[in-house]
Amino acid sequence: MTQPRALLFDVFGTVVDWRSGIARDAAPILAAQAPHLDPHAFADAWRARYQPAMEEVRAGRRPFARLDTLHRENLEAVLRDAGADPAAIGQATLDHLNRAWHRLDPWPDAVAGLVRLKARFVIAPLSNGNLALLLNMAKRAGLPWDAILGAEVAHAYKPRPEAYLRTADILGLEPAACMMVAAHNGDLAAARACGLATAFVPRPAEHGPGQTEDLAPAGPWDIVATDFCDLADRLGCPPA
Amino acid sequence: MTQPRALLFDVFGTVVDWRSGIARDAAPILAAQAPHLDPHAFADAWRARYQPAMEEVRAGRRPFARLDTLHRENLEAVLRDAGADPAAIGQATLDHLNRAWHRLDPWPDAVAGLVRLKARFVIAPLSNGNLALLLNMAKRAGLPWDAILGAEVAHAYKPRPEAYLRTADILGLEPAACMMVAAHNGDLAAARACGLATAFVPRPAEHGPGQTEDLAPAGPWDIVATDFCDLADRLGCPPA
Repeated sequence: MTQPRALLFDVFGTVVDWRSGIARDAAPILAAQAPHLDPHAFADAWRARYQPAMEEVRAGRRPFARLDTLHRENLEAVLRDAGADPAAIGQATLDHLNRAWHRLDPWPDAVAGLVRLKARFVIAPLSNGNLALLLNMAKRAGLPWDAILGAEVAHAYKPRPEAYLRTADILGLEPAACMMVAAHNGDLAAARACGLATAFVPRPAEHGPGQTEDLAPAGPWDIVATDFCDLADRLGCPPA
Repeated sequence: MTQPRALLFDVFGTVVDWRSGIARDAAPILAAQAPHLDPHAFADAWRARYQPAMEEVRAGRRPFARLDTLHRENLEAVLRDAGADPAAIGQATLDHLNRAWHRLDPWPDAVAGLVRLKARFVIAPLSNGNLALLLNMAKRAGLPWDAILGAEVAHAYKPRPEAYLRTADILGLEPAACMMVAAHNGDLAAARACGLATAFVPRPAEHGPGQTEDLAPAGPWDIVATDFCDLADRLGCPPA
């Protein structure tokens, strides 16, 4: 592996802890409107609709729609599935809850690691989140991205090859000069198939105490790091 | 005017001094290959082909092409116009010179002003420059953008309304929550027609000592500021 020029980060699960953040912001709304719904189970159910919604776009059955839109549709569906009435909750509350994805907290090592990595590399998200979602998240959490990239800019959802290849092209870089950083083996496999370098950073608490997937590397990734600070060490970044 | 949420900046001329930067990087190449060409006159001639090249895209006579591509075509044309042979200069040298647009220096107040503005607002370029150009420029010059927006992300060149309206939509904001900051009255007029707020920051040295245009505000702009630090003052940002 030659040294990459740009590090591209998966975000949900890799940079931020979506499950705790969604449960935190949903808890007071569920307590008032659907008290039988456990906030973490609600977060899991909302997230379970994420891949099927994007698959409609990836398969060409639906024009590209940004993730805020898919999340909003899925929110109403998951509430109805649980026997709650979205209309009784109200549009303003639903809109606010939908933006909980903009208010997720980073894992404890993420900001410190990114600051070190930014001194040597271009750093950007390559997420299925839309640009405003990722921007608002970064502004709130202090994620020091050089640019906000991902599905909305590439106009394709991961793991479609276009998501990776168009991002490299927009950066003016060969795929091999880009390294995908993710906690998900599937994302890295798709990136590697497009010629990107790969770094696996496991996040064993992403799915809560019962997590069984993505606990260990499942491919020939260029780097396996315990967290973003370890990644900075392995890529030769000076200490903070 | 209500307080904006996002400040969107024109870049060439407003944030960076393109004329001096292009002349600086062109000088050694011209000295070796086309010694009759004055570096500042060369910069002016290259820039003079900028609007006509984009107009091909705006008018629909050509599919969207990023500015690096248009600059590269214009570079060969301006050299040929001056009687120089691009082939004799060589592809690697031409490619390097084309990226002089990635290496422009900011006006002296720009970084300090942007740092103050970033603490209170989302700040992003809304430039006709492509994403890699703006990103490489920011990385070199320390421009602390929250995101890199502009023609490539909006898929439309200013002053087409789509360039402004799609940028606001991508940010999840109403046009009125966005303020266009520019040294060019024409850019502000187009932004205002789309409902954006406007701030004029004159750059009387943009075109060198003979500048006659854009020396004063020519419309009912919401703010007229002498530089980016004055803009931060006028928008109520705390001192550095």
